[in-house]
Amino acid sequence: MHTLPDSANRLIDELARLPGIGRKTAQRLAFHFLSSDVELSHSLSNALLDIKQKIKKCLTCHGITEENPCKICGDMKRNDSLICVVENAYDIFVFEKTNSFSGKYHVLGGALSPLDGIGPEDLNIDTLLDRIIEGMEVVIATNPSVEGETTALYLSNILGKKGASVTKLARGVPVGSDLEYVDEATLIRAMEGRVSV
Amino acid sequence: MHTLPDSANRLIDELARLPGIGRKTAQRLAFHFLSSDVELSHSLSNALLDIKQKIKKCLTCHGITEENPCKICGDMKRNDSLICVVENAYDIFVFEKTNSFSGKYHVLGGALSPLDGIGPEDLNIDTLLDRIIEGMEVVIATNPSVEGETTALYLSNILGKKGASVTKLARGVPVGSDLEYVDEATLIRAMEGRVSV
Repeated sequence: MHTLPDSANRLIDELARLPGIGRKTAQRLAFHFLSSDVELSHSLSNALLDIKQKIKKCLTCHGITEENPCKICGDMKRNDSLICVVENAYDIFVFEKTNSFSGKYHVLGGALSPLDGIGPEDLNIDTLLDRIIEGMEVVIATNPSVEGETTALYLSNILGKKGASVTKLARGVPVGSDLEYVDEATLIRAMEGRVSV
Repeated sequence: MHTLPDSANRLIDELARLPGIGRKTAQRLAFHFLSSDVELSHSLSNALLDIKQKIKKCLTCHGITEENPCKICGDMKRNDSLICVVENAYDIFVFEKTNSFSGKYHVLGGALSPLDGIGPEDLNIDTLLDRIIEGMEVVIATNPSVEGETTALYLSNILGKKGASVTKLARGVPVGSDLEYVDEATLIRAMEGRVSV
């Protein structure tokens, strides 16, 4: 290893810090940068600096944006009385790709997790409550994990008191899957939540 | 997709250009940079600029290096009369990790491939011939592909004429593999090249 130049080793270290990128992939990527045009390294480097300079959090929904309010919060065509609550900014992107939701969003910035010391004061809950108007619908779209479900339960209580109608995503068998491979907990929820044809 | 800020889209595009990184992984990585400290983006950005500034090709072996000659070519303890010829600079790194080779290296910069228009004049063959001293050993370690084998055959001819003793890597069953999964061509080579126990 001592034969690799220091700067190459440093690039490998930096790449290996990224999620889902192991040491071997990092080495392969580093050598790709080494053998490519200087333009490839420069444009990625610029793009990395750019996001940190330009992107900030939307003051309304806490999603990522270059302007304030963000494009979604500022969109007059969207339904103001329908808010989808998600854990992370990435989840907004996931829903937007489906083109099936016409309301607005609110990013919590995580989920309640007493074991990790994450309580209600660590999430963007105050700003969510400020947005609630009596009679509006709030769809809680936290992850279907223990933390996500706990957060959903907590939110449904306090949002209900503010007069919002609280819903959450349907649980059931994923479209296109095979019943054989669906886990039991999901099957139980799917059976409980069966709908008339 | 129109809801994602332009700079985020640009970062996703840049990441998706890398080998082995698809659109989904690029999105996940971009959001990792967005949600991480500014330090993560800055240090990767710097490392990318650094390699392009500092790393050059060794004038002797064409490997990558920060100084000239490179650490390997400048190492007096290494055997000067043993050269391992590889296709790419990365291959040097692969051999060095094994700690089993004490000679020097020479990077061809590719392999002969008439279909892609790569002829002998496109590879670092002239500088290899300049390094040959009668009686020295040259191990040809090109890839075990059609192009690699063609290059090995071509090199063994011209190197032989210069008085070098030309060898190539042993072909056989990989260590730790299962005979059941070894391809036929490899098995034939392994049988042909059988050695006494």
